[in-house]
Amino acid sequence: MKRFGQVIGVDPQQFEKYKTYHAAVWPEILEMISACNITNYSIFHKDNMLYAYFEYTGTDFTADMARMAADPKTQEWWAVMEPMQRPVAKRSVGEWWANMEEVFHLE
Amino acid sequence: MKRFGQVIGVDPQQFEKYKTYHAAVWPEILEMISACNITNYSIFHKDNMLYAYFEYTGTDFTADMARMAADPKTQEWWAVMEPMQRPVAKRSVGEWWANMEEVFHLE
Repeated sequence: MKRFGQVIGVDPQQFEKYKTYHAAVWPEILEMISACNITNYSIFHKDNMLYAYFEYTGTDFTADMARMAADPKTQEWWAVMEPMQRPVAKRSVGEWWANMEEVFHLE
Repeated sequence: MKRFGQVIGVDPQQFEKYKTYHAAVWPEILEMISACNITNYSIFHKDNMLYAYFEYTGTDFTADMARMAADPKTQEWWAVMEPMQRPVAKRSVGEWWANMEEVFHLE
């Protein structure tokens, strides 16, 4: 299992809308996330920033992310979410949510 | 079980020192965290900010946090960590690490 922490900004004018969507995520989106071997997935909010934590239990993260990105319903969901999000300037090439560095872990 | 997401800044001049300490946290600190019913505890770093995720499995978080705060070794650890940390302006009264709002969770 590999843990991920990720960060992205959110437009303060649209945060309530973002929150409403995330209180009732479309079932197909949840199913695809689970099918792509992501578990224990949380998103937190503070000061116009969103922080994601999830655990990846599969064996090929790149392939699973490509599968997710190819899913039409996921593309539809992202088309609603992305205009509300504000990616951080210092993200790596190809990132939308920026991966963070794990500096500590205790089971 | 209750999930927590928390955020705090870190002095960029001292981040490497912070990271070195967290690569070898004193055993007594880890034991106290576990004794206070905190599990699956990670800290991530990005752009001079630190993000913590942990799960609380006890029944009285306030009492467990008071127990941790009363521990001399924990106080000693915090006395080393706090000068490296930069609490966010919009934290609640009594907070050091600021609690974030959970807006999404998938098991």
